Amino acid sequence: MNSLKIYNTLTREKEIFNPIHSPYVGMYLCGPTVSGESHLGHIRPAVTFDIINRYLKYLGYIVRYVRNITDAGHFEEEGRESQDKVANKARLEQLEPMEMVTRYTNLYRDAMDKLNVLRPSIEPTATGHIVEQINMIEDIMSKGFAYEVNGSVYFDVTRYAQENDYGRLSGRKIGEMIAGSRELEGQGEKRNPADFALWKNAPPEHLMRWRSPWGEGFPGWHIECSAMSSKYLGAPFDIHGGGMDLLFPHHESEIAQTKIAVGKPVANYWVHNNMITIKGQKMSKSLGNTITISQMTDGNHLLLEQAYSPMTLRFFILQTHYRSTLDFSNEVLMAAEKGLQRLLQAQRTLKDLAYNEVDSDFNQEEDNIVKQLIDSCTVHMNDDLNTAMVLASLFELSSKIYSWQNAQLKISSISRETFVLLLKTFNDFVSDVLGLKDEITVDDSKMNELMDLLIALRKEAREKKDFHTSDKIRDNLKKIGIQLKDGKEGTTWGV
Amino acid sequence: MNSLKIYNTLTREKEIFNPIHSPYVGMYLCGPTVSGESHLGHIRPAVTFDIINRYLKYLGYIVRYVRNITDAGHFEEEGRESQDKVANKARLEQLEPMEMVTRYTNLYRDAMDKLNVLRPSIEPTATGHIVEQINMIEDIMSKGFAYEVNGSVYFDVTRYAQENDYGRLSGRKIGEMIAGSRELEGQGEKRNPADFALWKNAPPEHLMRWRSPWGEGFPGWHIECSAMSSKYLGAPFDIHGGGMDLLFPHHESEIAQTKIAVGKPVANYWVHNNMITIKGQKMSKSLGNTITISQMTDGNHLLLEQAYSPMTLRFFILQTHYRSTLDFSNEVLMAAEKGLQRLLQAQRTLKDLAYNEVDSDFNQEEDNIVKQLIDSCTVHMNDDLNTAMVLASLFELSSKIYSWQNAQLKISSISRETFVLLLKTFNDFVSDVLGLKDEITVDDSKMNELMDLLIALRKEAREKKDFHTSDKIRDNLKKIGIQLKDGKEGTTWGV
Repeated sequence: MNSLKIYNTLTREKEIFNPIHSPYVGMYLCGPTVSGESHLGHIRPAVTFDIINRYLKYLGYIVRYVRNITDAGHFEEEGRESQDKVANKARLEQLEPMEMVTRYTNLYRDAMDKLNVLRPSIEPTATGHIVEQINMIEDIMSKGFAYEVNGSVYFDVTRYAQENDYGRLSGRKIGEMIAGSRELEGQGEKRNPADFALWKNAPPEHLMRWRSPWGEGFPGWHIECSAMSSKYLGAPFDIHGGGMDLLFPHHESEIAQTKIAVGKPVANYWVHNNMITIKGQKMSKSLGNTITISQMTDGNHLLLEQAYSPMTLRFFILQTHYRSTLDFSNEVLMAAEKGLQRLLQAQRTLKDLAYNEVDSDFNQEEDNIVKQLIDSCTVHMNDDLNTAMVLASLFELSSKIYSWQNAQLKISSISRETFVLLLKTFNDFVSDVLGLKDEITVDDSKMNELMDLLIALRKEAREKKDFHTSDKIRDNLKKIGIQLKDGKEGTTWGV
Repeated sequence: MNSLKIYNTLTREKEIFNPIHSPYVGMYLCGPTVSGESHLGHIRPAVTFDIINRYLKYLGYIVRYVRNITDAGHFEEEGRESQDKVANKARLEQLEPMEMVTRYTNLYRDAMDKLNVLRPSIEPTATGHIVEQINMIEDIMSKGFAYEVNGSVYFDVTRYAQENDYGRLSGRKIGEMIAGSRELEGQGEKRNPADFALWKNAPPEHLMRWRSPWGEGFPGWHIECSAMSSKYLGAPFDIHGGGMDLLFPHHESEIAQTKIAVGKPVANYWVHNNMITIKGQKMSKSLGNTITISQMTDGNHLLLEQAYSPMTLRFFILQTHYRSTLDFSNEVLMAAEKGLQRLLQAQRTLKDLAYNEVDSDFNQEEDNIVKQLIDSCTVHMNDDLNTAMVLASLFELSSKIYSWQNAQLKISSISRETFVLLLKTFNDFVSDVLGLKDEITVDDSKMNELMDLLIALRKEAREKKDFHTSDKIRDNLKKIGIQLKDGKEGTTWGV
């Protein structure tokens, strides 16, 4: 179990993964802000940490995986403070904020299901943990690391930085951070430009508001993750994940908050996935190249030449190592679509292959090649979860499988033992570790129509005394668990 | 829009439904307690209020539908206080309570999707609204209707009953309620046995706990619904729903809490569905006749002779008026399975029927019968949502549809106008109002296998120059949106 190495942003090194309470692993991922429909930038961390979750389970660990939903809060971007995205969007759509949040949360969850992302053990929301956040802010204040101004509370970064390395994770220097800050909304209240909001006083028109010891307001963006991760995973826990764009200020602030409130580090391993670019450009609203999940699956976007299924998107993401930039283009996605089909077809073919032992066919070299390819799946995953290399190995194995099917190569050139190992490993890695599978591409009424058609074809064949065809239909259906029942009112079917 | 009548438990009368801010309607349903897997008793209210939600939308109303998830809290049953179900179950399963809650919430949501229950606009949780509950308790205390003892807070029912009709909804007398109470856990702290807990002090071993002005504790069961309904729907809102078992103490307590805290009634219409019995007996854990949703759909329960699909369950529920007892038996469920298929088949048949106008066939009496059946769907729904009678009308219409298909009766015996109206009404009521539809009974890999089979059959037919069959396959697939593409590597398909 302990040969897995993960790149730790905190140390800038690939480290052997040793959980605190093996076989239990605690993992937290900063989930989406549900002020709009999820886009490609939300998919990548979800899939990346799904792979970690799946691989840890494959290795035998018991994972408590917490992925939050940011459904409220004050948003600070680097150097400036922005407004509450959730409340603003709700005002635009003339909806009660929670009604909008529910809609986008449902869309996100549905997308995750379609992408075959395993559901987290706990999916806490920011609005669902206001008490916990207020409590944590009280604790930080009582220790002297936060101060109240006009009903808002700020974290005192300067005081924190005197004894702690604020900026260690993101590799920034506190002096530069201060110099880089601009004087904007709320800045006047801060003792120091680098300080960040823990609680914001709510102006009268603000829709989302809660009573607090400092008057009615709403939590800052960073505090939710410190409050929820320590509540459900303790401190420190094993793995904290997120996109690289969250390194600063979000994760840096989390570390500071938890250190003061709980007196401990947040997590032992900080893992960050790289960004998605569109034809080499950063994806952003201002460039108009943000693509939502439903646009991807409908093909309804200027940059898209066709629709791409959720499973194609998943495969596309896995083709690049998570710490590399993932560049979106139609060419790569079309290739991913084909690659995915080829891999799943190889999996089906492998299941149908019958192993025939013929001693004289055995070829030690061939057997070694296959065994090495099998081993390489684990080797690549253990090397900082290199799914790109795992896919390369699975494709080489697919070529072998196709050769056996076409009888270009004899299956008995490898030993039965190797064949059995291949069968298990190929399935484990395709289905369980990488989470790739066939998709539902037709709806249930189509299914009924297809069955009606097959039943009609069988009836015609029987009338023509073409029993080869009628038996073929019945037997093939039986093989996949569909039973035909001939009755007075015609033929019915069931599973 | 205003000819809908709903039975109001508060007045014991069918009343014309007049929303406060038409066309907007606010509706709240007490959702499940997620301390275990959902059972038949959870399905009935969900389906009943889904029907109200759907019918209100059909009538043109814009509904904000709030259905909560009870994932924490102290449970009081009549006459005695029980322990926190969620925390107890979590201890049994050795899980963090929220991990267990997440699992059962997911199971419930998945079941609702399969039952084709439309998702609520907002799905708030008790743990997600601790601040709101604490605030409401503070408000009630400040008005003198609640008192603290040893870190727990109780609602003062005696004082409330002096000026308010406590017991009006459930038809109970306060004196009887007191006489019926037993001296149990927590009773010693109460000034009066009829008082109920708003907040409970958490003993040290209690897992779910929050800081409050009265020390660490957890909310009473009733307060969550008052806090969440008034937050998202205001007070009063239009419709408050739930099972009849919630009349007392839950809904009675909600009314009292909101009256004091907000100064207003909870809702104008209180709607309650009746209970489910199993072969005439009340369903309860102690009788061992509780059937969970997955047991129903797997057929894995001693009382079940076979598995029943979610849509069969839905149909079964709709066959009885929501205010009548619904008695579960295998016979009725098997009949429901057949009835559902007959109705959906009639819907498909109707879509395929071509109307041929032949003046001489027109039969005024026949036309009147069909028009009356069409009208009766709305009439029955307007009469306190009588889905049982709507289904009866749809079945009479189905008989007509089958007669037209079998040419026993001429379709032109009714006018084209009536036919067009029938087409719309039948679809609207089956699909949109009653929410009945074909189910997904086979998974996607089966779908692939079916297509492989059809493609193989087509290939064989073409080789035999049986173009009737090969064309039939291609044309039928095309009709349902599946395109075949012949290429170098064989035939592929897409939708």
